[in-house]
Amino acid sequence: MKMSKFYMPTLREDPADAEIASHKLLLRSGMIRKSAAGIYSYLPLGYRVVRKIENIVREEMDNFGAQEILMSALQPREIWDQSGRWDTFGPEMFKLHDRNSREFCLGPTAEEYFTTLIKGEIKSYKQLPLNIYQIQTKYRDEKRPRFGINRAREFLMKDAYSFDTDEETMKEAYMNMWRSYEVIFDRLKLNYKVVAGDAGAMGGNSSHEFIALSDVGEGVIFYSEDSDFAATDEKAEVYYSVDDSNITVLPMEKVTTPNCKTIEDVANYLEVPKSHCAKAIDLIVEGKPVLVFIPGDRELNMSKLVSYLGAPEHEIAMMNDEEIVNLLNSAPGFTGPTEKTPEDVRVIIDSRLTEMRNVVIGANEEDHHYRYANFGRDFNGEIAKDLLMIQEGDIDPNTGSVLKSARGIEVGNIFQLGTKYSKSLDAKYLDENGKEKYFYMGSYGIGVTRSVTAVVEQNHDEKGIIWPLVVAPYHVIVTVINSKNKEQIEVGNRIYEELVLKGVEVLLDDRKERAGVKFNDRDLIGIPLRITVGKGATDNIVEYSTRKEMVNKEISSEEAIEEVMKEISSELKYLDTFYR
Amino acid sequence: MKMSKFYMPTLREDPADAEIASHKLLLRSGMIRKSAAGIYSYLPLGYRVVRKIENIVREEMDNFGAQEILMSALQPREIWDQSGRWDTFGPEMFKLHDRNSREFCLGPTAEEYFTTLIKGEIKSYKQLPLNIYQIQTKYRDEKRPRFGINRAREFLMKDAYSFDTDEETMKEAYMNMWRSYEVIFDRLKLNYKVVAGDAGAMGGNSSHEFIALSDVGEGVIFYSEDSDFAATDEKAEVYYSVDDSNITVLPMEKVTTPNCKTIEDVANYLEVPKSHCAKAIDLIVEGKPVLVFIPGDRELNMSKLVSYLGAPEHEIAMMNDEEIVNLLNSAPGFTGPTEKTPEDVRVIIDSRLTEMRNVVIGANEEDHHYRYANFGRDFNGEIAKDLLMIQEGDIDPNTGSVLKSARGIEVGNIFQLGTKYSKSLDAKYLDENGKEKYFYMGSYGIGVTRSVTAVVEQNHDEKGIIWPLVVAPYHVIVTVINSKNKEQIEVGNRIYEELVLKGVEVLLDDRKERAGVKFNDRDLIGIPLRITVGKGATDNIVEYSTRKEMVNKEISSEEAIEEVMKEISSELKYLDTFYR
Repeated sequence: MKMSKFYMPTLREDPADAEIASHKLLLRSGMIRKSAAGIYSYLPLGYRVVRKIENIVREEMDNFGAQEILMSALQPREIWDQSGRWDTFGPEMFKLHDRNSREFCLGPTAEEYFTTLIKGEIKSYKQLPLNIYQIQTKYRDEKRPRFGINRAREFLMKDAYSFDTDEETMKEAYMNMWRSYEVIFDRLKLNYKVVAGDAGAMGGNSSHEFIALSDVGEGVIFYSEDSDFAATDEKAEVYYSVDDSNITVLPMEKVTTPNCKTIEDVANYLEVPKSHCAKAIDLIVEGKPVLVFIPGDRELNMSKLVSYLGAPEHEIAMMNDEEIVNLLNSAPGFTGPTEKTPEDVRVIIDSRLTEMRNVVIGANEEDHHYRYANFGRDFNGEIAKDLLMIQEGDIDPNTGSVLKSARGIEVGNIFQLGTKYSKSLDAKYLDENGKEKYFYMGSYGIGVTRSVTAVVEQNHDEKGIIWPLVVAPYHVIVTVINSKNKEQIEVGNRIYEELVLKGVEVLLDDRKERAGVKFNDRDLIGIPLRITVGKGATDNIVEYSTRKEMVNKEISSEEAIEEVMKEISSELKYLDTFYR
Repeated sequence: MKMSKFYMPTLREDPADAEIASHKLLLRSGMIRKSAAGIYSYLPLGYRVVRKIENIVREEMDNFGAQEILMSALQPREIWDQSGRWDTFGPEMFKLHDRNSREFCLGPTAEEYFTTLIKGEIKSYKQLPLNIYQIQTKYRDEKRPRFGINRAREFLMKDAYSFDTDEETMKEAYMNMWRSYEVIFDRLKLNYKVVAGDAGAMGGNSSHEFIALSDVGEGVIFYSEDSDFAATDEKAEVYYSVDDSNITVLPMEKVTTPNCKTIEDVANYLEVPKSHCAKAIDLIVEGKPVLVFIPGDRELNMSKLVSYLGAPEHEIAMMNDEEIVNLLNSAPGFTGPTEKTPEDVRVIIDSRLTEMRNVVIGANEEDHHYRYANFGRDFNGEIAKDLLMIQEGDIDPNTGSVLKSARGIEVGNIFQLGTKYSKSLDAKYLDENGKEKYFYMGSYGIGVTRSVTAVVEQNHDEKGIIWPLVVAPYHVIVTVINSKNKEQIEVGNRIYEELVLKGVEVLLDDRKERAGVKFNDRDLIGIPLRITVGKGATDNIVEYSTRKEMVNKEISSEEAIEEVMKEISSELKYLDTFYR
């Protein structure tokens, strides 16, 4: 492609609202454009990257035995009602109705839809296992769309669904997809970790996430350097045992704690560790009052609480002061599980608090707490095993070593769904004995457009993007320094045409711009291999460099072409890493 | 792909609600499935066809200098307000809002969106001409979705938009796209005609449609065999001159026409030709009464009337009897342009009626008409040049010969938009003199999924589809008659593997089914080249045939492979006609 005719509107300045490198660089390099919050379009350069990633995903899905289909983005409400997710998805789902008032959503995912499709078609165990996938636009009305195409509201996703006869074969399908994901993310040259997750909104038994490491990632993971332990902060179980066995249990006493509204205040004033001050979280869950207590030195993990409660997240709200007074019979900031707590309040206590001795709890009165409170004797409630966010310093339960943390971008996830969806949508097959059985399912996602951001976050410098050859929009850029110079243009054209004939993807910068502009654009758009045609053109001498090294080598144009072909044949083993 | 593992749920019976061959066959062959009215999913076989067509379109768009991008399907309301089409599109547009009540539509097309994109980015005439396109899911909430994916509500479309400095270069871009469409539809082996259209909802100056001929097509075209004249029935101008010069103008007289409520009745009763009885169409247009008169032997062309009125189609309604009485001061069935017609009624008269002598018009009284009415003397109104539907027997204005008619499926359309959208969205560039000018635009659509139906309509028999090699989901099917026979399976596998190694796309029917089932499925799914492995396998003898000829030839397996390769190399000149 000759750049004089190429639609590649680069920007000199960082766009005002772009916070992270990938967002800034994709905008500046003219690869994406924003139309509305979380809604983006892909310009020619950017769309080539998307399609290359899409093709790698497609090739590996096919290699691992999945079959491609394409479902509609519009999904009828009825199937979501059957699974119960029409409501639980809440405002994150785009909903609409047609001219006849029939309700639809724009699919945020497609467990229900694939299950419904298979339900009528696959009747016998002989047709199993089956794994079908699509690469399709998905929709999520994010509360806070941000970071460009990293957290967008319309995005491209590969979603696969496996159908099996039993749990064992479902797990085989799961491991099969796991392996395919490793191949895919390896091919994308991503530095990633596979971490355990809970199944979240998908339901089911087991899940893993593929996290591309990046300091700007929205996800935090904790991992062990000497065991398999790895999980996102939201999903990592927190392991620590309370050993208060050498602390003498004292009788509970009420104390004044003037103006002590925070755990910090109380701990300082009473001179007790924060861990032994019960932190209250006052909630309205599906319209009813719920009180949650955790150790004062820890943070509540909302995702664990949601899964413990089994209520949709948007049905969980913090109480306001008025509600605390009226529903909890308590002064705000002094809530505790005491005799004043009304009976209709559900009290949930993190297990650690129940193992401690001599805890401080709110007295439900302004400026008062109880000290030396002990679970079972002085206060009661449901025991929840683990409602805590993991934090720095927590340990690997397998080895006892301190966990490392890192930030990352979730580029893939895999779920064992079991029979959750086949049951709710009544999808059965006939087994060897002619008996009806529910399908065992798995679901497997890859964020195609999000992977673009992960690649850029891991491959850039202050000047721009450094595309790995495998996903680069073009392999080579040939820069003609002076487009008015006949010899330079001739040599540039010749190199361009020879490379194109060899199947190489080439940009020819034949624009009538200053050399500085061309160099800056070249660094910004990050084409991996570069040939510069300048004054040496008279002697057939050009400069060859890579975007990564940025070291120029003066060689003949033929040698430059050789260098390119060497690089391409060593890096690109697969046909589909070429654009198509 | 081995069919024992392939997701290809064929059906033995025609689905009840499928009316046309392509709809039936695509469903029966397991290529598509319906999820809701006008909403379909593509199963593995069907999606391969879609992607092959998509790739042919992509390759030719690129060849003709268009650049691919991808815009979001969600489009913000504001840009549609600016062009005025938020309202004019009416209920055919899917509308929705996000969690913050911001309004969006699901793009039915993207003139506004592309104009808005280019507006901020392309600033100079130096960056023109520009032609950008996308292959993207589109949405139209059709009143009567039908014929499967032929008239669907969610469908795949290629839409391209050209941006030029002036009308002349716009026309060059238009002709360039025209040529690319011819190449594309030729490559798809479609039998099609290019017909003139008016610009309809797109606005602008000139347009053409690409119509794949088919008896079940929803469009009717009229064309001349001895000139370029060709147009859809809705859009074809009707040429005929009234020559009443030898008819004596008589004085108007009121006559009783008892129970003559139709043109037929009146013409018979008064013994005049139907052509000379004014047919009244009583309308409410944007809330106001409008009376249209055309010759009694012709049908009103609503599309021409809409464009004459400049009002959105959903703002045009037929009057009911009460409205005729109240607003037109007339008895229903006897409406005419008379002195009784209230002054606020807009009266529009097709030009032919104004050239006739001694016309019959309604007298606005029960059982009464006027005869010998003459325009100008006895009745008046706006003269509309042509509001008529073309019909059998009409003539080619160029040659005078009678036009032919045919039915067809609209697979492509091209529009010269002029400055309609650049003006309404204020999109300008700077010309050579630094002066701001509006872009001249064109827009160009191809129905990718609809093309699948056109190909099937033109290529099938009573047993199933007959795919042209270029879009066939697989090139070859190898049928093993007895999958339990070791030799047959071995020979089948060997042929399969050799062909796959050569890059041929092969289905191996290794299913444990009766031969009859396999043969029926093979005919149904329409794979163009067939190799049958039966008892001859012991002597390395197989049968070779094509889906089109269905004549078996007994040859060795090596010869069969040769036949396949010969066919493929002669038919498939382009790499992208292979699946990818």
